[in-house]
Amino acid sequence: MITPSESSPSEPKTVSDVFPNSKRIYVEGKIHPDIRVPLREVSLSDTKHPNGRVEQNEPVKIYDTSGPWGDPSFDGNIKEGLPAIRRDWILARGDVETYEGREEKPEDNGYLSDEHASRYNEKKDEKNQLKVYPGLKREPLRASKGHPVTQMWYAKQGIITPEMEYIAIRENLGREQAFKAATDSDGPRNLMNFQHPGNSFGASIPEYITPEFVRDEVARGRAIIPSNINHPESEPMIIGRNFLVKINANIGNSAVASTIDEEVEKMQWSTLWGGDTVMDLSTGKNIHATREWIIRNSPVPIGTVPIYQALEKVNGRVEDLCWEVFRDTLIEQAEQGVDYFTIHAGVLLRFIPMTATRTTGIVSRGGSIMAKWCLSHHKENFLYTHWSDICDICAAYDVSFSIGDGLRPGSIADANDRAQFGELEVQGELTEIAWAKGVQVMNEGPGHVPMHMIEENMQKQIEWCHEAPFYTLGPLTTDIAPGYDHITSGIGAAMIGWYGCAMLCYVTPKEHLGLPNREDVRDGVVTYKIAAHAADLAKGHPAAQERDNALSKSRFEFRWEDQFNLSLDPTKARDFHDETLPQDGAKTAHFCSMCGPTFCSMKISEEVREYAAKEGLTDEEALEKGMQEKADEFAEKGAEIYS
Amino acid sequence: MITPSESSPSEPKTVSDVFPNSKRIYVEGKIHPDIRVPLREVSLSDTKHPNGRVEQNEPVKIYDTSGPWGDPSFDGNIKEGLPAIRRDWILARGDVETYEGREEKPEDNGYLSDEHASRYNEKKDEKNQLKVYPGLKREPLRASKGHPVTQMWYAKQGIITPEMEYIAIRENLGREQAFKAATDSDGPRNLMNFQHPGNSFGASIPEYITPEFVRDEVARGRAIIPSNINHPESEPMIIGRNFLVKINANIGNSAVASTIDEEVEKMQWSTLWGGDTVMDLSTGKNIHATREWIIRNSPVPIGTVPIYQALEKVNGRVEDLCWEVFRDTLIEQAEQGVDYFTIHAGVLLRFIPMTATRTTGIVSRGGSIMAKWCLSHHKENFLYTHWSDICDICAAYDVSFSIGDGLRPGSIADANDRAQFGELEVQGELTEIAWAKGVQVMNEGPGHVPMHMIEENMQKQIEWCHEAPFYTLGPLTTDIAPGYDHITSGIGAAMIGWYGCAMLCYVTPKEHLGLPNREDVRDGVVTYKIAAHAADLAKGHPAAQERDNALSKSRFEFRWEDQFNLSLDPTKARDFHDETLPQDGAKTAHFCSMCGPTFCSMKISEEVREYAAKEGLTDEEALEKGMQEKADEFAEKGAEIYS
Repeated sequence: MITPSESSPSEPKTVSDVFPNSKRIYVEGKIHPDIRVPLREVSLSDTKHPNGRVEQNEPVKIYDTSGPWGDPSFDGNIKEGLPAIRRDWILARGDVETYEGREEKPEDNGYLSDEHASRYNEKKDEKNQLKVYPGLKREPLRASKGHPVTQMWYAKQGIITPEMEYIAIRENLGREQAFKAATDSDGPRNLMNFQHPGNSFGASIPEYITPEFVRDEVARGRAIIPSNINHPESEPMIIGRNFLVKINANIGNSAVASTIDEEVEKMQWSTLWGGDTVMDLSTGKNIHATREWIIRNSPVPIGTVPIYQALEKVNGRVEDLCWEVFRDTLIEQAEQGVDYFTIHAGVLLRFIPMTATRTTGIVSRGGSIMAKWCLSHHKENFLYTHWSDICDICAAYDVSFSIGDGLRPGSIADANDRAQFGELEVQGELTEIAWAKGVQVMNEGPGHVPMHMIEENMQKQIEWCHEAPFYTLGPLTTDIAPGYDHITSGIGAAMIGWYGCAMLCYVTPKEHLGLPNREDVRDGVVTYKIAAHAADLAKGHPAAQERDNALSKSRFEFRWEDQFNLSLDPTKARDFHDETLPQDGAKTAHFCSMCGPTFCSMKISEEVREYAAKEGLTDEEALEKGMQEKADEFAEKGAEIYS
Repeated sequence: MITPSESSPSEPKTVSDVFPNSKRIYVEGKIHPDIRVPLREVSLSDTKHPNGRVEQNEPVKIYDTSGPWGDPSFDGNIKEGLPAIRRDWILARGDVETYEGREEKPEDNGYLSDEHASRYNEKKDEKNQLKVYPGLKREPLRASKGHPVTQMWYAKQGIITPEMEYIAIRENLGREQAFKAATDSDGPRNLMNFQHPGNSFGASIPEYITPEFVRDEVARGRAIIPSNINHPESEPMIIGRNFLVKINANIGNSAVASTIDEEVEKMQWSTLWGGDTVMDLSTGKNIHATREWIIRNSPVPIGTVPIYQALEKVNGRVEDLCWEVFRDTLIEQAEQGVDYFTIHAGVLLRFIPMTATRTTGIVSRGGSIMAKWCLSHHKENFLYTHWSDICDICAAYDVSFSIGDGLRPGSIADANDRAQFGELEVQGELTEIAWAKGVQVMNEGPGHVPMHMIEENMQKQIEWCHEAPFYTLGPLTTDIAPGYDHITSGIGAAMIGWYGCAMLCYVTPKEHLGLPNREDVRDGVVTYKIAAHAADLAKGHPAAQERDNALSKSRFEFRWEDQFNLSLDPTKARDFHDETLPQDGAKTAHFCSMCGPTFCSMKISEEVREYAAKEGLTDEEALEKGMQEKADEFAEKGAEIYS
């Protein structure tokens, strides 16, 4: 269950409100029997053929990111957080220790002192207050045996972790029955080597994803499993171009608006709709507390941009940023359980003047912070010079990198310029250093890019960053539609996903204009689910098309409820249908509002098929035999279709 | 002014409500001085640079499809229709005659008799009644000199019609001042031969579009100017892949819902937002009257699917359709002024059984009508056998063909199959016959196609249909998102537009579910304007990027009002901004809600630029000189950015 929202009490909240006729199922592991992978199963009604035959339609299994909140039998609440499903797996590896952890400081939440915090919170209304629930607090873990505790390190040792098996089951979308023959120890078989026209790279997705395939992809750095050992609540997922394309939803309070409760609710809301990871981009007060709430309640990996909090700790004075404050922030967040850090270590001093002649300069917040720091001190970016130290911290907690693109283009005019590609090359250098330290890496990408320049981004990233997963914001394919930038960017996102991008960062309709509310988050997530799924189809993911086929079959057969229930947003589909034809009967009628009851193209097609089927004709036979007598019968059968 | 809607009285109606700070301007012709091409000009505010310098920003000119309704000085009303701006041009060619025309019959509006019509209308409320305004009725024109009166025929004779010059001015988007050197008689110069990666065709858009270039493209059949001589109200526009990508909006009442008034209003509404043509897909009662109202008031070409009305005339009994009824309908509609006919002449008997094994059979309404007719009579499609007769009618009125794709795929599973491509080949055959008769042609395309199969559609159409313009519905890139099919299809539309598709038929969020209302039409048109514009950018249309650059510059400089006003939907952009920061001051403030007032990435970029500019540094110089002293100054200048 999802916490009801005070601001929008009438909206659907529970998974069964949002996805009718769905049930939560779990698939168990084989190597690790305690694994239970959640899927959402949509039951379908039978097809009643005109000749009286009844055909059963198999239920459709769907990748489910909503976590325990999406399980109607789960009886938890956000003050206690989610169960730590990965805790035993982590401890069983015998290479971590609990320790007291860093002491929380007033400045973690943006206060000068405890007294300042009290005074500040007194003035706020109940909802905005800093609320700390002891139930959420856990003792942190860290590496204890002198080696990384990252999924990459295990993968390189040849170890198939429970996380890897979990992912293999999940990526197969419940197709395990259909592929019994592929045992877990088999390598991938029947590779569908996909080469998209126009480039020389592409994805290689096996017909059945085995745990061993997952391990291999992680070991070679082509995929990551963001999974901080201090976020045991997260359900393992993978980001890499030989897997399903993933999407990220950004949330976060800002100095101007929004509250902690709302951010937790946005996290639940975005994962209900299908968000695969969530980035908490909070700025301003109560950052630490907000993050604690979010992580303890999040079934998906959480990413952050640590420089945002570091900047708050120095009261927004960029010049005062330094390695010590940043290091302290990394440890603070690693102990809380952040799964990936965006770090703008590629914004080098020498690239900054290249942005001066741009139409839109530097538009990344992290990028401009580092640019200002570099200029103020005339020193090289300290994130770059301390990269090795940063890697050591991440290796001890298994925090993955999302190496930032601080110089990404902010307009069509600036796409694919020297500053952008200069930074991308440095990302490649940083990727190799991180890998040598055992740290998992993905690379962030643009931004604003016209369609014909998108592919170059993907090609260069694969080449320069050695096939590490790419993670892009859109890209937006035109600048002229503020208010619709989920769409301008959804176009670019679908394309780059097809070209090989592993994760797409969503853009909501409010991009460039304001802070997204619940409806905007829903619009953003659904749009990006469309982009990711369109890319999965185009990449040839063997399980992707089953849902399209099931939905189209139900549409063709006028099984309206099945069509709604198989869609990304059943509520909206049903509401739109009911606007025109609200009567209950209209959802079982063999017609729709486009053509009305007396004529329907789908009805006619059904007759064509019936006719062909009845005669047992292949089309060649039909041509040979001629169809005069059949035509006569058909004419006799009755002119009125809707009788 | 647009007729206020009773159903949504609070919505913006006039062009100045929807597009603030815009004015209507007209550019006059040179060859034909009575030509006045409308454009919308958006005025911008000055840039105030931090150093005190004031920079004037040139107004931006935008292609305007709203016709006289978008001119605040126009004082017309829908009972009288629009001025017949093309009438004199048509008469001046000396090859047409007026004649009495076909007598209107009760069955044109779906009635058995005049008495039936009266009885039917008595029962309806005022709004639904058949209202005929004498002011809308004109005597029809037809060819009188034994040759076609089509733009293609004139083009082949070497004649540059006023329509062609009008289009040249319009396609240049008001850039005529910047390209004075290119005289009208010059051929295209500085061709930007665009070849998109991955195929061997592409667009060849000249830097400046001359009337001669327009004539040449029309003569060779690579572009069409839909312009029935009986629709003199229409403002000339062109559809072809070496021009701006166009979009079509479908409207039309159906047996289930909607009224005449609403359809006229939808036409005005869709053209206000940027629809380039409108298809009237009405079925049921009052088809003739609805169409009369729409055409007399439409500044854009109107397309229809005549078989829909023919079917109404035989009371929905497909078997009773025949050439005589269809012919009568073609003449009826040609006399009214329909600019292009969708005719499903490629649905041949031999293709029909190929659809029996599809997931979604035949989903085109026209396609299934013809399929049923063929099966009922076991005869070849009479639209195919009478193609030559149909061409003769169209040549006499300059009705263009939009050769239908009756067997287009209705699901991802059916994309690019034998039935679809079989019909496409026949479209090519029909195209050549039409051209020989002087008739302008475009070809309709799918439908539902996954991304990796889109390009093949474009390539085959160009090859098999001899470069006639392609006109596609979407395509939808996945089936799983009913309620969001403007987005699933906007992705495919943008891509196929880039690949060379000349016109994109919009899809609204209600596709597959219900009939679009005003908001759906707006969402559909704006989404398709995005797709078309993204394609224009990717094709390298030389004028396309000016608007993106102007908008991005205003965004970067915090000229919020300019950013809103340059966008496709200023009202929505402003509303979204105001949801987070409603204060008036926030629209002049140098910050936005994403980062709040104390920090802003764009503000920092401005400082980087200022810094580089002040020092007159190129980036190489900056590297050589080192920037220590500059950095010191920068630090001195003040740490707080927002001061």
